[in-house]
This record gives sequence, structure tokens and C-alpha cells, in this order.
Amino acid sequence: MVKIAVDGMGGDFAPHAIVKGAELAYREGLADIVLLGNKDVIGPLIDKSSGIEIVHTTDNVDMDESPSVALRKKRNSSMNKAFALLKENRVQGVVTAGNSGAAMAFAIFTLGRFQLVERPAIATLNPNAKGGKFILLDAGGNVDCKPGHLAQFAVMGDAFARSTLGIGAPRIGILSNASEIKKGNDLTREAHVIVKGLGLNYVGYVEGMDMYKGNVDVVVTDGFVGNVALKVSEGVAEILMTFFKENIEKGIKSKIGYLFLKEVFDDLRRRIDFSEYGGAPLLGVDGVCVICHGRSDEKTIKNAVGMAKCFVEKGLNDSIKEKMQNFQLLQRIKEK
Amino acid sequence: MVKIAVDGMGGDFAPHAIVKGAELAYREGLADIVLLGNKDVIGPLIDKSSGIEIVHTTDNVDMDESPSVALRKKRNSSMNKAFALLKENRVQGVVTAGNSGAAMAFAIFTLGRFQLVERPAIATLNPNAKGGKFILLDAGGNVDCKPGHLAQFAVMGDAFARSTLGIGAPRIGILSNASEIKKGNDLTREAHVIVKGLGLNYVGYVEGMDMYKGNVDVVVTDGFVGNVALKVSEGVAEILMTFFKENIEKGIKSKIGYLFLKEVFDDLRRRIDFSEYGGAPLLGVDGVCVICHGRSDEKTIKNAVGMAKCFVEKGLNDSIKEKMQNFQLLQRIKEK
Repeated sequence: MVKIAVDGMGGDFAPHAIVKGAELAYREGLADIVLLGNKDVIGPLIDKSSGIEIVHTTDNVDMDESPSVALRKKRNSSMNKAFALLKENRVQGVVTAGNSGAAMAFAIFTLGRFQLVERPAIATLNPNAKGGKFILLDAGGNVDCKPGHLAQFAVMGDAFARSTLGIGAPRIGILSNASEIKKGNDLTREAHVIVKGLGLNYVGYVEGMDMYKGNVDVVVTDGFVGNVALKVSEGVAEILMTFFKENIEKGIKSKIGYLFLKEVFDDLRRRIDFSEYGGAPLLGVDGVCVICHGRSDEKTIKNAVGMAKCFVEKGLNDSIKEKMQNFQLLQRIKEK
Repeated sequence: MVKIAVDGMGGDFAPHAIVKGAELAYREGLADIVLLGNKDVIGPLIDKSSGIEIVHTTDNVDMDESPSVALRKKRNSSMNKAFALLKENRVQGVVTAGNSGAAMAFAIFTLGRFQLVERPAIATLNPNAKGGKFILLDAGGNVDCKPGHLAQFAVMGDAFARSTLGIGAPRIGILSNASEIKKGNDLTREAHVIVKGLGLNYVGYVEGMDMYKGNVDVVVTDGFVGNVALKVSEGVAEILMTFFKENIEKGIKSKIGYLFLKEVFDDLRRRIDFSEYGGAPLLGVDGVCVICHGRSDEKTIKNAVGMAKCFVEKGLNDSIKEKMQNFQLLQRIKEK
């Protein structure tokens, strides 16, 4: 059975939601669980009969703590101890809903990066209109990127799509403001030249509409733009749903209409609910690491454990490692 | 009566949709119209009894033409001739759905910029969940910005919100990936320091959710991120509506539900329909210029003429000019 370390103290609703989510995952047989955190706090939250192991830690990384400060002062935190267990092969993956910048910093520090990966990236899975998914990376870790970083994201995203989504030749696009290559900005134009030369199934620039229409499998962007794009998406989806809710409640006629359409609304809500996706893997570090939204609830954590298990079983990291080694072009870029 | 010059040859559906839109605006008494374009092409499209004036031009700017090429070779285009009429005070505003990069280039070249404006910006009006609007700038013209440019956008956006939306102390935010100032990227962090010192009602960083929830009146960003954010928004809204359409058509039950909810759907569709907003003003050039989406239909053009008229009557440009002159801090930034 795959064993996953869960950072019990990270997240807006920690430790309660994290512990409950880990317990759910265990009960559903997704994975064996090691829960890290203060045993006096998390111990009473766990059903004694469950087989979840607790590793006692005393330090926590705060949600708004600077990653560099955390890296210096919080080596004994629940977060870093989870990575340490992974490094020692006592678990096969880590799930955390804590400070994502600190999680990246500890993952890089404790696990190390694969050869040729300068910037590990957070890769989110997002729903498209065709009922499928697209991968977006980087979704937040790396705010000021160089063109070579985007090329590394393209290679890692390709490996992710192949090994996890089972797509034979993933369509890779660079997120931009227009489809014409001469548009874009300095970063995308330079990245375009490099990515075009990598031998991937590169489809050029993609726009917001392309992602959601299902015209692309992997969307490459710097972490600032990627994060803004995802948060704008969440914002639009949420206000549209709020609009329906408020207007439906206004009159008897619309309330009746809602009853007839309830299944459609429920299906949509499920599709755009980030908790269904669990979390996002950090690609490029030497170990499976799933980073969850700070406001994750127990369902998110459970799904994130399932995701981590899936990445372990499908050998996601081996495929990234192998893929990166094959890209001598990336080596030459790095040497520049 | 305000007189508006309409570029009859610019846009994906030109000249037909443009001519019809201009005619609609004229008929509804929004403004007097001068239509620029090849009279052999647009003449037959116009109702002879209408009082629309045609100014004959022979050159057109192509939708995918490089702005610098257009600027060199297309001085006699319908687009530039519209700006020339404005420069000569024969009209009070320009509406074009043509190549927006070229429109910016001609507007700057022919009309000139206000003092202290280095980069004129396209400012879009967008719906929020409270039934109000927020302004986003730059929405596409300036892809690689410096911090001082964002500060200029903040000042122009403030003037736009005051004079057009009638907001006394517009809440100004910088679009970012998180609310904490230490997050963001190099550009937003430096811009934050400058904008904070301008004496505006600056609320700090804003995220996608804030814009749509109605927590901010003016969202400042570079044109690449702004354009990506708007296109992502359109993409999400469109796939959600498509999802409903497809699922509603699947069964008799959902079709009945739709009949009951039709008014709610129609209201929502109107709110998220960009053609309702007409177009976006180009702020910072010495003359009222409304730039429309390439795929504008006649309703968009009609509304854009109404928008241009409104900007003329409300003295939008005078307030921008005056506001910019008052910002000596911007002068010092520019001198650096």
C-alpha cells in the first residue's frame, strides 16, 4: 500500500479539516497515512481505532510566513518533517495545504530538484468544456520567469499529461494575449522560440478561450500570470453561480425552474469545484508532493491523498526525470 | 449635437456591421456621424435618406498588420483619417473596431499624448456581482510595462471613474496573485510603492475575486496580464453558458426548467455580453477614442458611438489632462 505523509498543521482550517480528510482517505483505502503535527492537538481529533500513524512535531509554518524565514527557522515543522519522511523513503508522497511558498522551498531544500529543473512548478488540473481537463503550469510558485523556465515547464507538463492523463501527444500551448506570435510579451516571444525547438506537440500561443474550450492539454505560463488566470476563473465562476442563486430565490417561478434544473446546476457545481481536484502536484522535485489550496476542506485533502497515490503508482516523477534528461536543448539554454 | 467619426473599414465584420451600427446610432439620435471608408463599398450599404456623411478613403489597415507598418504605409487609411478629422476638430470623437494596435499607434501619432502620459491605455468597463462596473486598464495595448506606467494608469483610471462612473473616491487596486504586498512580482511591488504615494484611494493588491465581487473600482495591470485576465473571464463565462445550453437541451425536464428560468438566463447573458459595453476608451491621448473588439456587431458599434458621445459630454479627456498635470510625483518618476 502506498503511504502518504499529510501535514496536519497547514491550511486555513487546520488541523481539523486536514485530520478528517486524512482519516477519510484512509477509511476509503486510498493510502496508508502518516499525519504530522502536535500530537496533543491532532491526537484527540483522530478516531483511536483508525490505523493512522502520528509523527509528533512542535513547530508550524504560518500561512503568511516568508518562505525564506520558514526555511531558516522551521526545519522541525510538520511541513518539513513530512518532506524528511519522504526523503528517507518512509512514505512515498506528501500532501500539504500549508503556505505554498514555504512548501516549495522545503520541497526543493529537502528533496532536491531533478537535473535541468531550475524552477519546480505547481501544475493544476482544470475542467474544460469537453468534459476533459487541461493542465496549467506554473500556477503560482514562480512569479518572475525567464524563457528557459517556461520551456522546462513545457517538458514537465508534457510528462505530467502523458503519465497521469494518459494523453499520447499532449498539445502544449503558451498562454498569451493573442494567437499571433508577434503579439505576446518579451517573455512569451522568447519562450516560443525555445519551446518550438523541443520536439513536443507544441500548438503555439493559446488564449483564455482555448483553454476552456478544450483546444490544448498543457498551458505554460509564468506563475504570476498563471495564478491571476486561475483566480480570475474562480471569480467569474463564483459570481455567475451567485447571480443564479440570488435571482432564483427572487420568485416562485424561478424557484420552480430551479427544481427542474437542479441536476444540471449540481453537475456544474461539481465540475467547477476545486475541492474535487484535491490539489496540484509540485513538478520537478525528487518526490511526489501535492500542494492544496489554503482553504482546503476535508474533501479536498482526501482527494489530494488520492492524487498523490495516483502519481506514485503511475510513476509521474520517473517520467519527469527521464523526460528532462532527454532534453539536451534545455541543457544548452541553461548554460547560456 | 456631438459628431463622431466611425472607421467604416475596421473590424472582422466590416464594413457591413459597422455601417449598420453607425446608422442605428444616428437614428437613435446618439450622435451625428461621419463614416470613413471607400464610398463605392459603404455608400450602397447606407440608407440614402439618412443624414450620415461619408468621407471617402481608399486605404484600409488590415486586422493583422503590424502597427509600425500601418503607421508608415497607411496614413490615408479610413482609420487614420478618422483621427485626422478629430485633430482638425471636425468631429469630437472616433470609434474603430479595426486593428487595435494600429489604432493606438495612429491615435498617439495624430492626436498626441497628454503631458506625463508615456503609455496611453485601453480601459475596459466590466460587470461586477453587485450590478455595478469596474474599470480595468491596461487591457491590451502595453504588454511590457514599467512601474511608472502602472502609476500613470492608476491616475487615468481614477479620472475615468470619477468623470464617467460618477464615483467620488474610486477604489484603485493593482491586479496581483495575492493580497499580501510581498507577494506579486517585481513590477507590482515597485508599482505599489509609487501608487501608494499618489494620494489616490488606493486599496492595495486585488485578486480576480475582488474585481468581480465589487471590492474595487479601478484595476491597474500591464496590458499582457489585463488582456489575459479579460479573455480568461470571457472563456469561463462562455463555457458555463454553453454547458447550460447543452445540458438543458438534453431532456424534457431541463427544458421545462429553462422556460421558468429564461428571464434569469437572459438577464445574465445581457450582463456578460461585451457588445452591451460598446468598446473601451483609449486613455491618455488628446481626443476621445473608443476602440471596439474586432468581432463587434452592429449593436456594439452603436453602443460605442453612445459611449464616445458620453465621454465628450462628460469631459473625460479634460479631467485626465488636468489630473495628470497635478501629479508632480509622476513627473519625478519619469525623470528617473
